[in-house]
This record gives sequence, structure tokens and C-alpha cells, in this order.
Amino acid sequence: RQRFTFWFDAWSGWICVLLVGISAGLVAGFVDIGAKWMSHWRTGVCTPAFWLNREQCCWGSRDVEFDNVHSELCKHWKTWSEIFGMNELSVSAWFFRYFMFIFWSVIYATFIVCLVVGSAPYASGSGIPEIKTILSGFIMYGYLGKWTFFIKSIGMIFATSSGLIVGKEGPFVHISCCCGNLFSKLFPKYGHNEARKREILSAAAATGVSVAFGAPIGGILFGLEEISYYFPYKTLWRTFFCCMVGALVVRIINPYGNGHEIQFPVEYNVPWATFEVVPFICLGILGGLWGTVFIKTNIRWLKYKKTSLIGQYPRAEVIILTLITAIICYPNLYLRLTMPELIRRLVGQCGVDDHMDLCDYERDQPIGTATTKLYAAIAGPGIHRAIWQLFWALIVQTILIVFTIGTKIPSGLIIPSISIGAIAGRLIGIITEQIAYQHQHLAILRHECGVSNEHCVTPGLYAVVGACAFLGGVSRTTVSLVVIMSEVTGGLSYIVPLMVTALAAKWVGDTFGEGIYEENVKLSGYPYLENRESFRFTLKAGEAVRANRSDETIPLACMIQDGMTIAQIDKLLHRYPHSIYPVIINEDFPCIVGQIQRRDLLAVLKSRKTQLTQVKLKPSLNRKFSVVSMSSLLNKSGQPSSFGMRRASLALQSSKVLKLHKLVDRAPIIVTDQTPMEAVVDMFRKLGCRQIFVTKNGHLHGMLTRKDIIRLMHEANISKKLEH
Amino acid sequence: RQRFTFWFDAWSGWICVLLVGISAGLVAGFVDIGAKWMSHWRTGVCTPAFWLNREQCCWGSRDVEFDNVHSELCKHWKTWSEIFGMNELSVSAWFFRYFMFIFWSVIYATFIVCLVVGSAPYASGSGIPEIKTILSGFIMYGYLGKWTFFIKSIGMIFATSSGLIVGKEGPFVHISCCCGNLFSKLFPKYGHNEARKREILSAAAATGVSVAFGAPIGGILFGLEEISYYFPYKTLWRTFFCCMVGALVVRIINPYGNGHEIQFPVEYNVPWATFEVVPFICLGILGGLWGTVFIKTNIRWLKYKKTSLIGQYPRAEVIILTLITAIICYPNLYLRLTMPELIRRLVGQCGVDDHMDLCDYERDQPIGTATTKLYAAIAGPGIHRAIWQLFWALIVQTILIVFTIGTKIPSGLIIPSISIGAIAGRLIGIITEQIAYQHQHLAILRHECGVSNEHCVTPGLYAVVGACAFLGGVSRTTVSLVVIMSEVTGGLSYIVPLMVTALAAKWVGDTFGEGIYEENVKLSGYPYLENRESFRFTLKAGEAVRANRSDETIPLACMIQDGMTIAQIDKLLHRYPHSIYPVIINEDFPCIVGQIQRRDLLAVLKSRKTQLTQVKLKPSLNRKFSVVSMSSLLNKSGQPSSFGMRRASLALQSSKVLKLHKLVDRAPIIVTDQTPMEAVVDMFRKLGCRQIFVTKNGHLHGMLTRKDIIRLMHEANISKKLEH
Repeated sequence: RQRFTFWFDAWSGWICVLLVGISAGLVAGFVDIGAKWMSHWRTGVCTPAFWLNREQCCWGSRDVEFDNVHSELCKHWKTWSEIFGMNELSVSAWFFRYFMFIFWSVIYATFIVCLVVGSAPYASGSGIPEIKTILSGFIMYGYLGKWTFFIKSIGMIFATSSGLIVGKEGPFVHISCCCGNLFSKLFPKYGHNEARKREILSAAAATGVSVAFGAPIGGILFGLEEISYYFPYKTLWRTFFCCMVGALVVRIINPYGNGHEIQFPVEYNVPWATFEVVPFICLGILGGLWGTVFIKTNIRWLKYKKTSLIGQYPRAEVIILTLITAIICYPNLYLRLTMPELIRRLVGQCGVDDHMDLCDYERDQPIGTATTKLYAAIAGPGIHRAIWQLFWALIVQTILIVFTIGTKIPSGLIIPSISIGAIAGRLIGIITEQIAYQHQHLAILRHECGVSNEHCVTPGLYAVVGACAFLGGVSRTTVSLVVIMSEVTGGLSYIVPLMVTALAAKWVGDTFGEGIYEENVKLSGYPYLENRESFRFTLKAGEAVRANRSDETIPLACMIQDGMTIAQIDKLLHRYPHSIYPVIINEDFPCIVGQIQRRDLLAVLKSRKTQLTQVKLKPSLNRKFSVVSMSSLLNKSGQPSSFGMRRASLALQSSKVLKLHKLVDRAPIIVTDQTPMEAVVDMFRKLGCRQIFVTKNGHLHGMLTRKDIIRLMHEANISKKLEH
Repeated sequence: RQRFTFWFDAWSGWICVLLVGISAGLVAGFVDIGAKWMSHWRTGVCTPAFWLNREQCCWGSRDVEFDNVHSELCKHWKTWSEIFGMNELSVSAWFFRYFMFIFWSVIYATFIVCLVVGSAPYASGSGIPEIKTILSGFIMYGYLGKWTFFIKSIGMIFATSSGLIVGKEGPFVHISCCCGNLFSKLFPKYGHNEARKREILSAAAATGVSVAFGAPIGGILFGLEEISYYFPYKTLWRTFFCCMVGALVVRIINPYGNGHEIQFPVEYNVPWATFEVVPFICLGILGGLWGTVFIKTNIRWLKYKKTSLIGQYPRAEVIILTLITAIICYPNLYLRLTMPELIRRLVGQCGVDDHMDLCDYERDQPIGTATTKLYAAIAGPGIHRAIWQLFWALIVQTILIVFTIGTKIPSGLIIPSISIGAIAGRLIGIITEQIAYQHQHLAILRHECGVSNEHCVTPGLYAVVGACAFLGGVSRTTVSLVVIMSEVTGGLSYIVPLMVTALAAKWVGDTFGEGIYEENVKLSGYPYLENRESFRFTLKAGEAVRANRSDETIPLACMIQDGMTIAQIDKLLHRYPHSIYPVIINEDFPCIVGQIQRRDLLAVLKSRKTQLTQVKLKPSLNRKFSVVSMSSLLNKSGQPSSFGMRRASLALQSSKVLKLHKLVDRAPIIVTDQTPMEAVVDMFRKLGCRQIFVTKNGHLHGMLTRKDIIRLMHEANISKKLEH
């Protein structure tokens, strides 16, 4: 039995991440399938089996046709107007279908916004800023509860299928972390230790991205780069396992229905030409600019909402937004698709038997067998039509996303960014293709694109690169972005173009401001200590303490090891509302020996007072008590010192002395007053501590808390800006 | 001008990594092309243009044929026996070719081993353990010099083309780091600051892997996971840029000649079946076991060599080894290929027009057009022949690699591991394929492999997975391994199988011991503080200090701030050979105020003594001098204290007082004696410090150095093993 306990303890971390991986994979599969079915339900029903979505419905049938945007049409699939027996081609039938589309969208949105606002406010938004803050050491009670988990999982299905410009990747991180939190409660080793629980949560967050994208490695890296604060080797290794389990589960559920784990497959494998680096960099710059504009307007809108009337009616806001979105989106064939469907069309390459608008090239030679290479050609009327519709879609999505992100529904912004980027990329791709075709005799083009008009510029690749650029502009990630884009498209030959674009997007974006997650953390005012930028402090720790003190005009309150009266402590707690107090030896010799939490002190004092009241004794507020451990009164030889002996016997005699030595944390972090602030900030970041004590010639000089550091960094930031 | 200096300072990091990226890319391209040409030179010459390798030679010609292992044969390419006018089919011609192969191999090996042993001993071996140690804060003078750089670059061409079982990936890390070191000297910000230089070196190390494999992202992750000690966000971002530049340069040079960046392309895209997880896990276990056996025997051999006669004749050792390798390898067609060529054959899928042994299936139906799907079939005689030859190759390579790694030539072990793994994987793949074919009516196979005998098990995929398993068994990496394997093969659909295998290999390997790089670090005795494993110390810092002290039976030596005589300091330096001394206020009040380096003290004392001798004064060895800064003699109000005032005036009056205050580092790292050792180890790892001072009730209690920590961890390890 003891052996089992030992074994269980050693393996509990692995079992816990196994469970997290399985559950995250299951939720991901469930949400994917549910959202697809519900989105298609807005346009029609599969008559033989209503539980099938349009794709599945048309799989079996032989008469599948494709419309202008490559959506399936088959006789099993009935639109709402067909079901109600209307003439399919009449104007009234079109309007009826339009109405049903809007109707279902609004129903979905209403249902979920009422659920979220009513019973799980934490389920709204993306959750990544909050998870970042939690992983940096802040505790938010209830944020990772089971109710939030449940509502957010349901909410993702409804929110994405209501046609709103929201993605499911951010929320998945939150959902996975909920799983991590819930399962870690089964294992005392993790449930009762916040630091260890954060290890599980780090792995869970990465798994969330993994299962959402079907990109196991990309998820790990996103966790590493963007979400987690500190990622030790052991966590990496567990995260790897957790993501693998999640990916396996998703594969078995097979939500994309193609036997691969790839969400937006690119089937082409054309080498890219070196001159294409130029349009790729342009796309990167565009992505960086778009990201900046989006972040700034979105944050401004969120700030405005907080103070205005709209903020008080979150339900109405979402319902009206859904109504507007549905009304605008239905008439445009591209916007009518769900975002993943749209992205899949955009990154695809035109095959020989594709008859969608986007592939309408005026080819000179008749297209022969299936293996014939597709040559570049002049754009036909279909492409012109597609360009205008896509351009309109770009504008609509760009405007809608600003208002949608931050409403009270589960909403991620990765898929919307990819969608907008893919549209922009495809547009630029088509333009580049046409330019290259019309100037094919230029030396640079002839050299790189082979003889005559062999296919050279692939518009689908530009959509992938555009998606990478726009997502990079918003999230400002680098390695994980490239890996995610490679994994979701399966286009591993295009790593270098993606890197170039991600770099351009990040450089441009960083010139104008921070990424969306950082801005959101700031907006919400979470105590998150930025661990990326390096600040040039000229201050020393001692000066920083003095600067703080003159600010607050209160000296540092200390507990004294040798003894204090309860009245003294009461007064101290009342006057100096710190969350932690240093314990010093005595006032003449203020060497720090430990630290004690305000919370613990209050609790002890409260119970003591009640106790004294119960035994009908007048609370002896002036009685001295010791906050010192008995062991520290022993001298080196192991014998109690004379002073220690006296106090020890005193303490043993009188049970009225309140012994607090168990509350004292005897390992405080100490620096000298001459330590440069850069080193102090480094310790805060790397050791994850909440306060550091500053000593001067061995004596306590002051305390620096995490909040002090955040304020100092903020001030340093402002003065840096003023200098420029 | 000032503006330019500012700009230059701000961007110097980027310019430096740009230069590193370009140079690493150039070297990689140069080495790739050179090594290929020189390897082919061993078998023959391209008569129209001797500077072409066999592939390039046969590109233009129309009569290209392929032999049993898919090597090109064409009339431009003349074997040595042809050149010397012998009858190509005679036995003597075969023996002549055999002789020439051995001759050139030995010539190459002799040249490089003499160069390395004679003029650049640092150029031998892989270099990864040393780079790891350097990045953890240890300084090895000359290890990254330009002579090492030059010899190692040349050496890689000769070593890989001599047919020895060595790879070029590890050495590339070393070469890139040399570039990093050399270029950082151009930028004072980086060249003069070891910590900042390490940032550049981290980026360079990652770039080395990137350009060696043509795997930019894999390189970054390998750097992150295996090489770098600490990887802050800013470094990640620079590394990304550096790897991108390297990848772009390699692409422009285009050494693989296929317009892609992919070294061992897998062109198939068959989904894998879930039941295949079982053979993948078996391969992983096999890889882990193989890795363990290889590491243990190799380390034992290296230890044996150190003490035996062989170690004294490194040149003879390499020459004999090359001779044996060439004699054994030539008769086997697979071993005759260079390792990258062999790997490419093994991971490839059999096409319809492949007539190599490995593709000799007895197909029932006649093979029709190019687009026909290849169905599984029973193995033909060619496959049986190939199996036995590959099995022999597996044994030969496994034995040779043990003796080759660790000789005095530049030698990496990543490509050899991949090669051995790919052979093992392909063998298991063929076996699985045949089993699946012969039992195709089993329910599980029928369900997963589609109707009847559609192609289901892909032996090439097993080669990829096997390579991943064996490399994982040796290097024990996880994420980076999977990414590297995906990138070098371009098979992104196979991430999950690779993850499963990597996991199995690592788990099995870690049960029996550590990875090759860790073992090598230990073997060389570098002061590398392991930053992965967590140790369970029950000790507190104070106890650890005492444990150390009783070991060494010397008390801690302190400098006293108030003043010491030169004689006292001399005695101290002589008796206690620490590399650093704490500075305390005075003996009665031993509060720590700073630390001073032995090196600095010695230098000052030496110059002082010479000075005194020069001015014909008897060295006043008993004169007191102060190691204290004037500012610390001022009390809080900014006024000199009475005591300080007296000493200050004294110091000003007499120039005979030696002022050492500038040498004192006033920001030592301090912990209390009650701090748990786990927290102390954490500080060592994360803050990268070399020593930590332990205080007890504010008084100096002892010092813990990095070496103490390594010894304590080692002892903890031993006692853990004894418990089991």
C-alpha cells in the first residue's frame, strides 16, 4: 500500500496531464463538430438525417455540385425555403433564407450571452490575458471553476456558429486551464501547491492551443512564448506529453474529416521565388500596421464602453451586433461561409476542375488530363467579381472585429485575424500573379519562374503568408506563429517566407505599441510584471526604496523577534496595511530574520481574541508575546543561551505567550542597498517572488514589492517616452 | 555623429546576428557542396568538368541510369578504373576501385587529423558539450578562436567525405559560435561583456543547427532545449532573426539542388493508421535502448583510451579507423553511399519507376500510368537482398560509431544516429508492411487500410520514425527533435507519430542514464550546473555551509571593511585560496557589505609592492589600508560620521593607505541560513551567480559556491541511488 502511494505520488503529474490532454481533446472534437453542424443549420437541414452537417450530408450522394465559393449542393441538403416548399429561385425564397439565417444567428447569440452574463461572467472574452496573469503568480478565485468550464465550452459552439467574428482558440486555452485546475484537485501534490499547480496549468494552456489548431508543436511554442511566465524544462517535457495526448484524441475524433490533423491543408508544393520576398515583406508590414490599428481602436472602444451607457447592456450589445453581422454577411458569399471554411478556400490552390470564381482564369490552352501543370493565365470575370467581394469582406470583417472582441461572449481573435490576413494575402497574391504574368519577360521573373509562363506566383501561398502577417501583427509572437501557420497548413516548404513575414509584422507592430494580450492585461489592471522588455534603470535598490517611501510618506513597519505586545501589533496592522511584514531581531539591531504575512497575523489575533473572550478573561492586550522560533534561541553549541533559556522557560511556564514562530517564513529574499535595480527586477522575474527586502550594512533598510516594481517600470517607460 | 553612435549601439545586436547568420549560412553551403564533391571523388571523376559531383555531372546527360541503390550512372562520370583504362567488369578493376576508395578515404582522414592534432586541438569532437558549458557561464579561452573556426570548417569537409561515421551538425554549432564570438568583437557592447556575448552565442548555436539541417525552427528549438542554459525572450527573438538569415543564405546557395530547403524530402502524404502506433512505440523503445548502449560503451571506451596506449597516438587511431571503415564499407552498396544519401533512399517511398532493390515488390497487376496508386505487394528477391545488406549496415555502423565519436577529428553524431535509426526503421517498416499484407483480412487492418490491399503501411515513414527514435535515444530532446525531423523530411502530417516515438525513446533512455551531451560534460569534468533535474534536498543553506566546512576544515576567510594591513591580506590570500572573499563591516559585527575577487586583490597587491620597491621604500607591510568606499562612511543624513570623518581625513592625508573600494562589488547575493537548499539551487540556476553568501541573524555565516552545489547535487544523486 505504501508502495502504491509512492508510485502514485511520483506519477501523479503525468496522470494529471494525461487526463487534461484527453479532456481537452474531447472538448475540442465536440466543439468542432457541434459548431460546424450549428453553422450549417442556419442555411438548411439534411433531410435524411438532420444530425449531419452539409458536408457529411453530401458525402454519400452522387449529385454533388459546387457553387461559386465551392460549397456543396446536393439533393439531400434542403435549404429552409425548400423545406417550406417555396420556389427556390424566387426573390421571396431568397429573402426567406436571409431571414432564417439572421433568425438562427440571433437565437444562438441571445442564448449564449444570457447564459454568460447570467451565470458565468468569467466565461466571456478570450481568457489569454487572465491566464497569463494567473501563470505569473496572481490568484483569481473561481476563474478556472467547473461552471466556467461548462458554460465556456457550450458558449464556443454557439458563439462561433452565430456568425460573429470570433474564434475559438483563446477560449480553448481557458477551457484547458479549467480542466487543468479541476484535475489537479484530484492530486494533493498539485492541488494544494499553487506553484506546482501552475506547472499543470502551463501544460494545459499549451494543450488548449494545440487542440484548437490541431497543431501540437505550435501549441507548445505558443504556450512557451506567449502565455507562460516561466517554463522550466520539466514543464516542457510534460507539456509535450499533454499536447501529444490531446492531438491523438483529436485525431481519433477526426473533426476535419480528412484523416489528417491539418486544418487548412495546402496541397501545392511549388517552390517560392526569391523575388517574392518583396511582396511577403509588404504583407508583413501591412499586417503589423493592421494589428496596431486594430489594437488601438479596440482598446479605445473597450475603454469608452466602460464609462458609457452601452457597457450597462451587454446582452443588447451582443444581440444587436449579431443582427448587424448577419444582415451584412449573408449577401456576400464569402462572408456567409464560416471563417474556417473561408480560410480553407483562400489558402487552397486552384485545381483543374475547380469552377469557383477565384479560379476563373482565361486559359489559352485547353486543360487536358489531370496531371497537366496549371500555367498562369490572365484573370477572368470571375476573379474580378471575387476580388471585389473579398475586398468588401475585408472591410466588413475589419470593422466588425473591433466591436466584437471584448463583448460578453467567449471570443478569441486568432481565427478572425487569420481570416482577415488570408483575404488580404489572397488579394495581394492575385495582384502579384497578374503583374508577374503580364511582365513575364523581365529578367528577374524569367530567371526565377522558369521558361515562358510556367506557374510561378501561387495566390494561395500569399493567403497563408497574409494570415501569418496579420496574426503576427496582433499577437506579436514569432517562432510559435511560424510553427502554427506551418502546422495548420501543412506547408513546411514555406518556413522561410513565413519567418520573413512574421519578422516584418513584429518589427512594424512593436514600433507602435504592444501586442493585444499585453494591452488587455494593462486595461484590466492585473498585477502582471512584464518579463520581456529590459529597462535601463540607473537607480540602486536603496534609492528605489527611498523614492518609494517619500511617495507614500510612511516608514516600513517591522515585527520584532524578541517580542511585542498584542496592542503594538494591532496598531501596526492598522497603521501600515502591508500584505507582508519583515521580522527583525530587535530595534537596536534591525537585522532581518524572516517575514510574516498580514493574513496569518490577522487570523491568529482574531482567534486569540475570541478565545480570551470565551474564557471570560479581559483580553490582555499589553501582554508581550514572541514571534520567534524556540530553535533560534539556541546558540551554536546546541545549548540554549542564557537569554534564550530565560525566555524559553518563561514561555513554557506561561501559556499566555502567543507563539507565532510557525508563521514566520525564515527564508526572505534579501539584497543590499547597492544592488542595481536591473538585478532586482531580474530576481523578481526569475524567482517569482512578491517582495524583496533591502538591507544597508546588514540592517533592514526597506522593502520593494512587485507593485513597486511595476510602478517604477511604468515611470521609467513614461520618462523614456518623454525623452524622445 | 552622436546620433549615429546611438543608432549603432541600439542596432549592434541585430547587425551582429545578421553577420553571424550570413557567415554561418555561407559556411554551411560551402561545406555541403565541398563534402559532396569530395565524397564522390573517391569513386570517380566527372570527365567534362572535374569540379562537378556525380549528381551534377549526370544532370545534363540523357543516358542516366540508376544502380541497385539508385545512384546515378552516366557516361560523363568515369570511375577510377575507367580512367586508368581497365575493363570495367573484370575483378581486377573492382579491386582497383576498392583500392582507390580506401586510398582517398585514408588521405582525407590523414590530412585532417594531422591538421587538428597539430594546430587546432579544439577543433576536434562535436563541441556541443563545450558550448553548453560556455553558455552556462564558464569561460574557455581560445575555444572560439578564428583558427579553430577555420580548421573545423575545413575539417568537416574532409572528415565527412572520408567515409567515417561522423556528422556535421555538432561541429556546425561550434563553427557558428566561433562566428558569433569573432563578430561580437566588432561591437564593444557585446565583445566586452561576457553575459551579453552569451546572448549572441546562444543565437549562433541555434543558427548552427538551423543551417546544418536546413531546419530553421528546429534549430531554434534545439538551441532552446539542449544547448542554451538560459534563454530570455529577447534572445529568442534575435535567434529567430539569425536563423532566418542563415536559412535564406542556404536557400540562395541551394546545396541540396532541389529548390526546397528540405534535406531528406518525403514526397508521400499517406495518412498513418492508428494501429501503427504499436510499431512506432516499439521503435521508440528500441531507439532508447540503442541510445543507452551506445552512450555507455562510448563513454567507457573514451575513459579507457585516456589511460591506455591508444590515447597517445591520436593520428594513428584515426588513420586505422578510416582504413577499417573504408575496407568494411565499400563492398556493401548501402554503406558505400554517404550517410545523407543513404538516409534519403531510406525515407523515400517507392515510386512506380524505381528499380532499386528496396522497391522490388512482386506486384500482381501490371503497373500502368504514373498516377496509378501503388498497392502493397509481397516482397521480391531484391527486398530480401536489401534486408540482409541493410541489417549488416546496421551492425557495422553501430559498432563503428562507438569508436569514431571522440577521436581527434570534427565529429557530430546526429547524422550517424539518424542514419542508423533510418536503417532500423526501414527494416521494421518492411516487416510490418509484409505482416499487414499477409494478414489483410484482420478486422483492424481492413478497417484502417481501406478496401482490399490499398497501400497502408509506408516503410519510408518507418525510416523517418526510426531516425527520430534513435536520435531521441542519444540526445534525449523532445520538441526540437520532432520539429527537426519534420523539417528535414517535410512530412508535417506525421507529427503525432514522431511525438509518440520521441516520448517512448526518451522515457526508456532516461530510465537508464543521461543523454550523450550531459555524459560528455561529466566526462570532461566541466563545472556545469545541471538545470533540469530537481533535487530533493532536505538541507537548509546553513546546514549545507556547515557540511562543506567540516569537509574542508577551513573557516571562511573575510576581508574587513574598516581596514586591514597588507600582511594580513597576504596571509589570508595564502591560507585560503578562494576565488572570492566577502567583505564584512568588522569582526564584531560581521555583516556582509560586498565581495572582492582574489584576482583583483592579487593584481593590486603586486603593483603596490613593485611601486614601493621602486621608490626605495621598505614595503610597509604592517600599514593598514581600507577596502571601503568613502561613501559608506557617510551616515544616513549625508554627513560623515565622526568615525568616518576621522578615517576619511586620515586617508586623505596619507597617500600610503591603499584604497580598494573600487574593487568591491557591493551587490553580493545573500540568503538566510534557514533558506531551503532547493531555493538556493534555484537561485544559482536562474540568476547564474557563482557564489551565494549565507547569513545567520544578519551575520555572515558562510559561502556556497557553484562547485559546492555541484558536489552536493552529486552526493544527493549517489545517496538516491543507494536507497533504491
